[in-house]
Amino acid sequence: MRQAGRSLPEYRSLRSGTTMLQACRTPELVTEITLQPVRRHGVDAAIFFSDIVVPLQAAGVDVEIQAGVGPVIAHPVRSRADLDRLAELDPAELADIAESVSAIRAELDAQHPDTALIGFAGAPFTLASYLIEGGPSRNHERTKAMMLGDPQLFSDLLSRLGAISSAFLRVQLEAGAQAFQLFDSWAGYLSPQDYRASVLPHSSQVFADLADLAVPSFHFGVQTGELLAPMSEAGSDVMGVDFRVDLADASSRVQTGQALQGNLDPAMLFAPWEVLRPRVEQIVRAGLEHPGGYVFNLGHGVLPTTDPEVPGRIVEEVHRVSAEILGGR
Amino acid sequence: MRQAGRSLPEYRSLRSGTTMLQACRTPELVTEITLQPVRRHGVDAAIFFSDIVVPLQAAGVDVEIQAGVGPVIAHPVRSRADLDRLAELDPAELADIAESVSAIRAELDAQHPDTALIGFAGAPFTLASYLIEGGPSRNHERTKAMMLGDPQLFSDLLSRLGAISSAFLRVQLEAGAQAFQLFDSWAGYLSPQDYRASVLPHSSQVFADLADLAVPSFHFGVQTGELLAPMSEAGSDVMGVDFRVDLADASSRVQTGQALQGNLDPAMLFAPWEVLRPRVEQIVRAGLEHPGGYVFNLGHGVLPTTDPEVPGRIVEEVHRVSAEILGGR
Repeated sequence: MRQAGRSLPEYRSLRSGTTMLQACRTPELVTEITLQPVRRHGVDAAIFFSDIVVPLQAAGVDVEIQAGVGPVIAHPVRSRADLDRLAELDPAELADIAESVSAIRAELDAQHPDTALIGFAGAPFTLASYLIEGGPSRNHERTKAMMLGDPQLFSDLLSRLGAISSAFLRVQLEAGAQAFQLFDSWAGYLSPQDYRASVLPHSSQVFADLADLAVPSFHFGVQTGELLAPMSEAGSDVMGVDFRVDLADASSRVQTGQALQGNLDPAMLFAPWEVLRPRVEQIVRAGLEHPGGYVFNLGHGVLPTTDPEVPGRIVEEVHRVSAEILGGR
Repeated sequence: MRQAGRSLPEYRSLRSGTTMLQACRTPELVTEITLQPVRRHGVDAAIFFSDIVVPLQAAGVDVEIQAGVGPVIAHPVRSRADLDRLAELDPAELADIAESVSAIRAELDAQHPDTALIGFAGAPFTLASYLIEGGPSRNHERTKAMMLGDPQLFSDLLSRLGAISSAFLRVQLEAGAQAFQLFDSWAGYLSPQDYRASVLPHSSQVFADLADLAVPSFHFGVQTGELLAPMSEAGSDVMGVDFRVDLADASSRVQTGQALQGNLDPAMLFAPWEVLRPRVEQIVRAGLEHPGGYVFNLGHGVLPTTDPEVPGRIVEEVHRVSAEILGGR
């Protein structure tokens, strides 16, 4: 469950006194924070603790994460000259990331040998939006204006960013991550037409870049119900589904053989357990109807004010229901 | 075009020194602000200038609109006792609204007799979210927790709010508005299952309440591609479509005979005209393929930083293309 740490008192205590980017670049913290939800909730996989702008920072972008705002980029990318100043990502700059991954993998092997570690990176469009807007944006108007008004510059920027995403993931995979997830947090702000024309080729390239590693791949989005068909063409093994889409509809939109992931509304974790439990069961049952398979997850990140006892109860219920269904097959 | 005023210098100058709620309750300001986009852009219809919380304020709710935040509710509704304190809306409290509508209608009749005036109100779910959360919310977790955890209280609250929406619209329609639009700004945060079970009956009731007036009705949402089927059952004549949905898909999801409205991404107004113009034409052509008819509009509000010259150019292009298509039929 993405961002599961945010609701944990042990996460907040560990993070106290460090900035987000300091935490992401300190192997002892990354290791401990990645493992906290495994210990607390008994999940089947850990997702590498990082931030979407870490590979940009490693490539030399002047970025800080401001509390209550998010990433702030000192020099936004709005021209060819700005793009020319954006360097490639040298894997040597990611020695700390490799060290974190190795340490997590070693701890998992010792204590939770069946728990997988999933690598993390932002998708080219989401990284581009941060760089073009200079930070988080409600409407992504500068990004879309560049996408339509200077499609060559936009395409070149996304190519550069796709290579950065691929390099960031490769370091994690070579250090011991056994799968990866590409997060396109802002893709849901695009029409299917624009996604297909301007974004799909670059996300596809990331999956193609890493195909030689032959590890399971996940493709995440929110508000992407209408984009499931084109996003599923990018080539991941598993396609994420937010809470707005019926799993049966999602099932009909993705590629043959592709699995689905997600669908539980994070806000449902605030409902009483007697209401939440049957929802979890309903989603697991609907997910396992999908011929390509299903990975249980929330349809978005765990909300910070979530009762930290609830995700673990959900994990137990998912294990109970799925064992019942799969045992009966 | 909703919120068209925000991008106009004449709007910002008129609003200077008044709060949003003061402006909404001052007939001279409401009249002038409603008419500004008609004069500037030559649109075929004006939408009544108001705010979604105006009828709540008129019903006695202690609410203010804080700059950069949005509506802030002094005493959120979280219990049966809170609901019991929420009064019905006495139309006598809306004398200023009736006066504003009459003045706008008189000005339109004198200067733009073919321009319709569309009444404005928030839908029960959107009003409920403000009341339960105490203000705008990213995740609506308290609202959803009440919806699932205390469905009777939630249903009673939405019934009360539906009656308030209906009363607010009836005052506008009886004073001269010739159509109305119900804005469910937050419905797109619900799954189809929850929308259908907990929200649809209350929005349907608003359309039923006003059926005796026999005026065209519009139903607005964003991020509602997956909700178009249940939302279209609420009974409006026209169903709004945001920019995330292909019009052909939307066409297949709504009721037979129901028209569509919207679809142009407001961020597209930042693209060069030579890119934007064919997009407008493409949308008008796709919209007019829909058998139930089509009303051109943006898929969401006009963004505040939009060049105020652009909406008028779009209106001209819509008139040109639609005349060409309809003339050829």
